[in-house]
Amino acid sequence: MSMDEFGLIERFFKAGVVDRSDVRFGIGDDAACLQIPSGYEVLVSTDTLVAGVHFLTVWDGFDIASKAVRVNLSDMAAMAAEPCWISLALTLPEYDEHWLTRFSQGLHATLKRFGVALIGGDMTKGSLSMTLSVQGIAPAGKAVRRSGAKPSDYIVVSGCLGAAGLALEQWNKPDRDPSEHRILMQALHHPVPRLDLLPFVRAYATSCIDLSDGLGVDLAHILQASKVGAMLEAQAIPVHPLVKRAKKNEALDFALSSGDDYALCFTLPQEKRAALPEGCVVIGQIQSETGMRLRDAANQLRSYLPQGYKHF
Amino acid sequence: MSMDEFGLIERFFKAGVVDRSDVRFGIGDDAACLQIPSGYEVLVSTDTLVAGVHFLTVWDGFDIASKAVRVNLSDMAAMAAEPCWISLALTLPEYDEHWLTRFSQGLHATLKRFGVALIGGDMTKGSLSMTLSVQGIAPAGKAVRRSGAKPSDYIVVSGCLGAAGLALEQWNKPDRDPSEHRILMQALHHPVPRLDLLPFVRAYATSCIDLSDGLGVDLAHILQASKVGAMLEAQAIPVHPLVKRAKKNEALDFALSSGDDYALCFTLPQEKRAALPEGCVVIGQIQSETGMRLRDAANQLRSYLPQGYKHF
Repeated sequence: MSMDEFGLIERFFKAGVVDRSDVRFGIGDDAACLQIPSGYEVLVSTDTLVAGVHFLTVWDGFDIASKAVRVNLSDMAAMAAEPCWISLALTLPEYDEHWLTRFSQGLHATLKRFGVALIGGDMTKGSLSMTLSVQGIAPAGKAVRRSGAKPSDYIVVSGCLGAAGLALEQWNKPDRDPSEHRILMQALHHPVPRLDLLPFVRAYATSCIDLSDGLGVDLAHILQASKVGAMLEAQAIPVHPLVKRAKKNEALDFALSSGDDYALCFTLPQEKRAALPEGCVVIGQIQSETGMRLRDAANQLRSYLPQGYKHF
Repeated sequence: MSMDEFGLIERFFKAGVVDRSDVRFGIGDDAACLQIPSGYEVLVSTDTLVAGVHFLTVWDGFDIASKAVRVNLSDMAAMAAEPCWISLALTLPEYDEHWLTRFSQGLHATLKRFGVALIGGDMTKGSLSMTLSVQGIAPAGKAVRRSGAKPSDYIVVSGCLGAAGLALEQWNKPDRDPSEHRILMQALHHPVPRLDLLPFVRAYATSCIDLSDGLGVDLAHILQASKVGAMLEAQAIPVHPLVKRAKKNEALDFALSSGDDYALCFTLPQEKRAALPEGCVVIGQIQSETGMRLRDAANQLRSYLPQGYKHF
């Protein structure tokens, strides 16, 4: 079957778009047109997911779409911005009706869940990959950046770490436990963009980032941007129970270095600790001395040098 | 050499960004933050360019970047919107310092020429491709869509057609004329987004599109969106002189079906014809009867069914 780009877009993407009154027009022109409420600024973030790097081609298209959207929306959560609109540039090796059906179902279901409108994009032929660009809004000056952490601020993470990384590692291992693996795959495929924390983060956080590359690397971005250092309490870091069991002594290092969790990591003035939402955990404190240090249960210090994923 | 994403972005992309006072912050957070002037709407457009489909890997990285940006900005010209900011998601098979140097030079030079700020993006490993997303502004309600063409409106194109298509066809042909080929390659690599026509298009055009897939296909989008038809005067269609010479009797059909020209095609109420900027040519008229008809020099009519590029 031969399909042109326009037919595919009509069939799989234009139908089912979330209706937002601030979209003057979306798919079907050379650009979409968006209305911005007075007093607000626009936030823009872009993520590319490549088959074999960010997802596996054998995964269900539904899950791939869900993950791609969630990862993209998580960037808005990290800025304390409200995601509103999304563009999808999809590159496909061939026309695969089943895959496109599943993918578009996952896309529309996830966008509906978060009230975000698909406003456009592109569709091209090539190796499977996708680039999503989300646009959101925040009251002027209220977006939370990486650069505002201050010495003595608490360092907070919004949930357990390491599950998505373990899921990826155990993928295709024959001796894995099926019911545990389902839990882990849920974390990997359907990470939760922490938009529920938006009011708290916007009101109190001095800096924020979402954990895509691992706590070590991502916290280092905050430290670098804020020109500060960190003391982490090893025992306080919420390692996912299944990771603890699977990794034993290496669980902490695994949790620090494994990506794809999409929890938020933010810093908080000490006096706001009592207001912390449930599930958010203080894992250390910002210090004026740069670098990252880790204190273990025996009060032993070690400096921690995060190893980022080398893309090339 | 091993480089991480952040080092590459710092070195090749963050330096040299056009400074705009409406960028509250750009590269370096989870999202960029943009200030929108009061009374304006935001336009967003996304284009993916895949190696082997939209450009050839043997081309100079400078030219590839230039083309990618120009194609993206042309979408803003088509909406009569002012392009302001751009995001780049670049997927590369390997770290190639020379290529990245040339590509980033072409990117920054082209963005500087048009006053557009690079505000973010992504960098991933995979088959060479890139997705650009441009954000622009237009006074509320003033963006020009595809859907406003009215019967009796003139159909206008902003320049000669077919040169980019001929360049691509003659690429690698040993008997091509070198000086002619340079002219054609200029059209292919460095198409001009017709932002100079923005005031005219915004003031008078009833619909507009940019010619990426060929006049036939792209005009058909206007006709479909506006629920009208067109009568084209074959003799009036400005076929590029080198295309006329190379294609002889087939020159017109070649010009109608060849893409990558990035001229604008817009519709204009009859009484505005006298105001047409230089180089813009009336090629026909909108009719209430749907479909596209072509009238030749001998007053013979034929219906014209545009053949779009089948992506799959």
